Amino acid sequence: MENNIYELQYAMDTFYFLVCGALVMWMAAGFAMLEAGLVRAKNTTEILTKNVALFAIASTMYLICGYHFMYDGGLFLSGVTTVAQMDDAAIAQVLADSAEAGFDGDSVYSGASDFFFQVVFVATAMSIVSGAVAERMKLWAFLTFAVVMTGFIYPIEGGWTWGGKDVPLIGALSYSDYAGSGIVHLAGAAAALAGVILLGARKGKYKADGSVSAIPGANMPLATLGTFILWMGWFGFNGGSTLKLGGIGVANEVANVFLNTNAAAAGGLIAALLLARVMFGKADLTMALNGALAGLVAITAEPADPSPLLATIIGAIGGVIVVFSIVFLDKLKIDDPVGAISVHGVVGLWGIFAVLLSDSDATFMGQLVGTLVIFFWVFITSFIVWYVIKLIIGLRVSEEEEYEGVDLSECGLEAYPEFVTQK
Amino acid sequence: MENNIYELQYAMDTFYFLVCGALVMWMAAGFAMLEAGLVRAKNTTEILTKNVALFAIASTMYLICGYHFMYDGGLFLSGVTTVAQMDDAAIAQVLADSAEAGFDGDSVYSGASDFFFQVVFVATAMSIVSGAVAERMKLWAFLTFAVVMTGFIYPIEGGWTWGGKDVPLIGALSYSDYAGSGIVHLAGAAAALAGVILLGARKGKYKADGSVSAIPGANMPLATLGTFILWMGWFGFNGGSTLKLGGIGVANEVANVFLNTNAAAAGGLIAALLLARVMFGKADLTMALNGALAGLVAITAEPADPSPLLATIIGAIGGVIVVFSIVFLDKLKIDDPVGAISVHGVVGLWGIFAVLLSDSDATFMGQLVGTLVIFFWVFITSFIVWYVIKLIIGLRVSEEEEYEGVDLSECGLEAYPEFVTQK
Amino acid sequence: MENNIYELQYAMDTFYFLVCGALVMWMAAGFAMLEAGLVRAKNTTEILTKNVALFAIASTMYLICGYHFMYDGGLFLSGVTTVAQMDDAAIAQVLADSAEAGFDGDSVYSGASDFFFQVVFVATAMSIVSGAVAERMKLWAFLTFAVVMTGFIYPIEGGWTWGGKDVPLIGALSYSDYAGSGIVHLAGAAAALAGVILLGARKGKYKADGSVSAIPGANMPLATLGTFILWMGWFGFNGGSTLKLGGIGVANEVANVFLNTNAAAAGGLIAALLLARVMFGKADLTMALNGALAGLVAITAEPADPSPLLATIIGAIGGVIVVFSIVFLDKLKIDDPVGAISVHGVVGLWGIFAVLLSDSDATFMGQLVGTLVIFFWVFITSFIVWYVIKLIIGLRVSEEEEYEGVDLSECGLEAYPEFVTQK
Repeated sequence: MENNIYELQYAMDTFYFLVCGALVMWMAAGFAMLEAGLVRAKNTTEILTKNVALFAIASTMYLICGYHFMYDGGLFLSGVTTVAQMDDAAIAQVLADSAEAGFDGDSVYSGASDFFFQVVFVATAMSIVSGAVAERMKLWAFLTFAVVMTGFIYPIEGGWTWGGKDVPLIGALSYSDYAGSGIVHLAGAAAALAGVILLGARKGKYKADGSVSAIPGANMPLATLGTFILWMGWFGFNGGSTLKLGGIGVANEVANVFLNTNAAAAGGLIAALLLARVMFGKADLTMALNGALAGLVAITAEPADPSPLLATIIGAIGGVIVVFSIVFLDKLKIDDPVGAISVHGVVGLWGIFAVLLSDSDATFMGQLVGTLVIFFWVFITSFIVWYVIKLIIGLRVSEEEEYEGVDLSECGLEAYPEFVTQK
Repeated sequence: MENNIYELQYAMDTFYFLVCGALVMWMAAGFAMLEAGLVRAKNTTEILTKNVALFAIASTMYLICGYHFMYDGGLFLSGVTTVAQMDDAAIAQVLADSAEAGFDGDSVYSGASDFFFQVVFVATAMSIVSGAVAERMKLWAFLTFAVVMTGFIYPIEGGWTWGGKDVPLIGALSYSDYAGSGIVHLAGAAAALAGVILLGARKGKYKADGSVSAIPGANMPLATLGTFILWMGWFGFNGGSTLKLGGIGVANEVANVFLNTNAAAAGGLIAALLLARVMFGKADLTMALNGALAGLVAITAEPADPSPLLATIIGAIGGVIVVFSIVFLDKLKIDDPVGAISVHGVVGLWGIFAVLLSDSDATFMGQLVGTLVIFFWVFITSFIVWYVIKLIIGLRVSEEEEYEGVDLSECGLEAYPEFVTQK
Repeated sequence: MENNIYELQYAMDTFYFLVCGALVMWMAAGFAMLEAGLVRAKNTTEILTKNVALFAIASTMYLICGYHFMYDGGLFLSGVTTVAQMDDAAIAQVLADSAEAGFDGDSVYSGASDFFFQVVFVATAMSIVSGAVAERMKLWAFLTFAVVMTGFIYPIEGGWTWGGKDVPLIGALSYSDYAGSGIVHLAGAAAALAGVILLGARKGKYKADGSVSAIPGANMPLATLGTFILWMGWFGFNGGSTLKLGGIGVANEVANVFLNTNAAAAGGLIAALLLARVMFGKADLTMALNGALAGLVAITAEPADPSPLLATIIGAIGGVIVVFSIVFLDKLKIDDPVGAISVHGVVGLWGIFAVLLSDSDATFMGQLVGTLVIFFWVFITSFIVWYVIKLIIGLRVSEEEEYEGVDLSECGLEAYPEFVTQK
């Protein structure tokens, strides 16, 4: 009968993992809609193409080698025996091993479900990049970078942290990052920042007199839908990071994670909405949406331990930071059409250090070193890769193509071919 | 080993609750898309802002005090010990208590998961309001009302019913409302009705000669998407209202709920589509969508007991009612741009009394008294709150702002800035 | 205690089934958005109406008689005793029966959850049809066909295969089709093909000089969203087809299914994107989306057995096939505005035979005979039904209505009434 219980637990934990993975996969749609809503009509088909293609590339590259670099999983998952469907003898062996260990094994779930959950995380990191470089980067330059980022740069960094690989500094200092404010979000933003620096701003964004032109997105319902999708998917992103559902203790933890994830998003949205009202005199929807996302990023490094009130406050501070950061990056002429570097990078930093507010095991030095290692690894390698791509095929479309919109030059297809648009 | 089984049950029920809660959270996106599709382009950013902000406000107010008023949960959830992550001693205590009780405890799930499920319900009630007052209400007036509705009006009413608080009339007469045709949907509609009465109709809706102008929504795909999202989320809304998954009996009940919820939506859609065809000569998509939602509202008060055929019929009657109600409210010059009062209020009434068709424990008097208490409590308190807001900051935008669209005056941001629109 | 374990298993398997069913229901929204994005603005309300109505019709017809024809479930589910909420005595009986059988019963879940999962499959088959006949078919002709297809044609075919009914040829030759590349997707495409042949091409699609006019869809973000929704929902479509979650073996199988489903979609997208780049010189978003869907269809007949790498390749071949098929069908003047016949029919064929690559129990003859039976049954019966509808009410709108758009003539409602459009 113990075998029966163990089998049930195995099935339930696997099921839990798969549901969370499906929710994280759904975030890919969220990024696509958010970005499609925040760019101009003439660049919409291209950003959609980037988003669907990066998800496919991430899925494939992580399968080919990324999972191997992160968790020693074998190229093509060849070393992950549990990925293959177990026969009865293998199941009997698992049960016998577990019985010998007193049924307290840690990984009571299918290896394939672990891969599925991890692979959608890679795509999330890459999705962050696409928004920041929107409206002027060549499609194939972006997709080439996606191959390297999802096959190598992210997995190696992930191996140092979640993969538990032997990297003295991080290991010794116990960098704590539950679902990846740093490992996923800061990493994505660092890659984006490197690309944006090499790419330059969109034509007309920063004027000679120092003023900044607002370039409004073409479709606010899409941006709002994208935010709601991300909000929903984040329950899987943070919730699944317990890696199993287990018994009473973990179930409580997971429930806290759901509650706190929601509370932080709410806090971030309200704070950004109110701050934008004070600063700009209007209820700025895009700031409210970025505030919600900032709240989500902020709570991601430790969504289990804070009280719900503290989670709301951590999110609200994220919402405040994102508004100032977006304004500040424009002063630095770092042109990020959707605010991704602010949401995932600057607020990601806040999230990493907000861990110290509720997790007594985390240390300032641990968080700092982890942050520096993640940021500089991703930024420097990304910079090199972007630079090589720039030399070989170029990063940026021509001025004329940028003016006409990249939809026609890159995809040969307008996003809204029948709607008459103002240029 | 009994402990192991109990732990598994606890984990599974918590997981079930969280999945249902995530589906209900998703309904917020459904309302946002539905309403954004049914208003004119010039009022779209504002309705989106209202929808995201009300969800954040509901999440925060219910955390601060709403849950406390509804379930004695303590302000800021401070009294809900299970919200905190349990340590091993606490888990051992739970197991010991449960063993003593013969492992038949009722609430075999995390307290945090209960809060998460309840908090998304509050947002649903508030989402109903935003559509009815669309296109002419001041944004901040609406958000101020949202604070009171989600922190006080709804939770107090919910405490009398689901909260099991000692309110003699309702308690004695056993008002029966499984997932809230009355407690959530009628309540939301009552608050909306009070607002609409004080607010007045949109300019140009009702002409001097008594005729009614159709004001079509700007984006039918969004409205359809919103309806599909609501349809999907409703499985969590009704399904999660068992509050646990448990064993064979409850699992069967939950499966019935999913089946019947779907059947009622289908019945409502078909009935409204056919009726509109007969009445208006065309296959009216918006009526079909409202028919599906009407079917969902109608089955919500008792989704478990009816046979699938009866569920289809209950939904179909809801679909018929909603078409007549929308026409009738226009005759009364109650201007509800999305039909929310008809869908959630009038059909909510039908749902409450449809319980009598399949639940032999429910009584006509019980349903009637519950209905009256809910309606008048919410309507009267809402009326007072709306009135106070009207006195202090005003409910309605200026005529010029209404003509230009509230997107520019309230949010400073057009929803579709590039698309050329006909005014 | 064995009873407790059995009850937990029953609850978990039911829960699993319902979650998968909700994901498949969500695919209805995916088809609606995909098709709404790929037709012209003037035909958008009508295609939305078809999509919501067909889902409601499928739900109702399968309840009335479809489930009965497929699984001997009784008309109106009357024979499915487990659909009714079990009382304690019935539960005790189930437990006693299961104990006698050594707790190894196969269908450890609620009968209602089985119906729920099956009913959303019917809608999927029907959704395939709506895209292929878009932009020129009469709404009520389509809905009439939907009644016959979902109540009779599909259920009878499903009864021969999944229903295990005694049909000598198929039964003897062991046709193997895990989640329905043939039973659902090829069937839907066969019904669509019959309709398209009788309906003819859209005006202006094929010119007198033999050239083909591209008629681009009006809304690429919607088409992309629809694809993401389908991709997500497919995890439920393929994953739920284990019909239970069970213990370690089935949980591993389900995890493989999720992993492989995702891998195949990714492979299909990349292959179609690259091939279209080579053939047309651009990164064609609609081909990439169809490539992802082709990958999903291709893996559906056997998503559990292939290694992840093989799944990627099976998907990629699907992505190649779909591009050639779309071009080829245009040469045959078979006008399918969304590419549904290629995605679900031609690639469905590939999926059926790809089973032979990983399932040693499947035979070429078995797959061939199954394919022929499914295709000819559905094609011939559909052709007859379409033909009768054509005789009685006509299939096609008038030339003038087609020119003006079917939204106005069929629904009396424009999808985007305010946006100025180019005709």
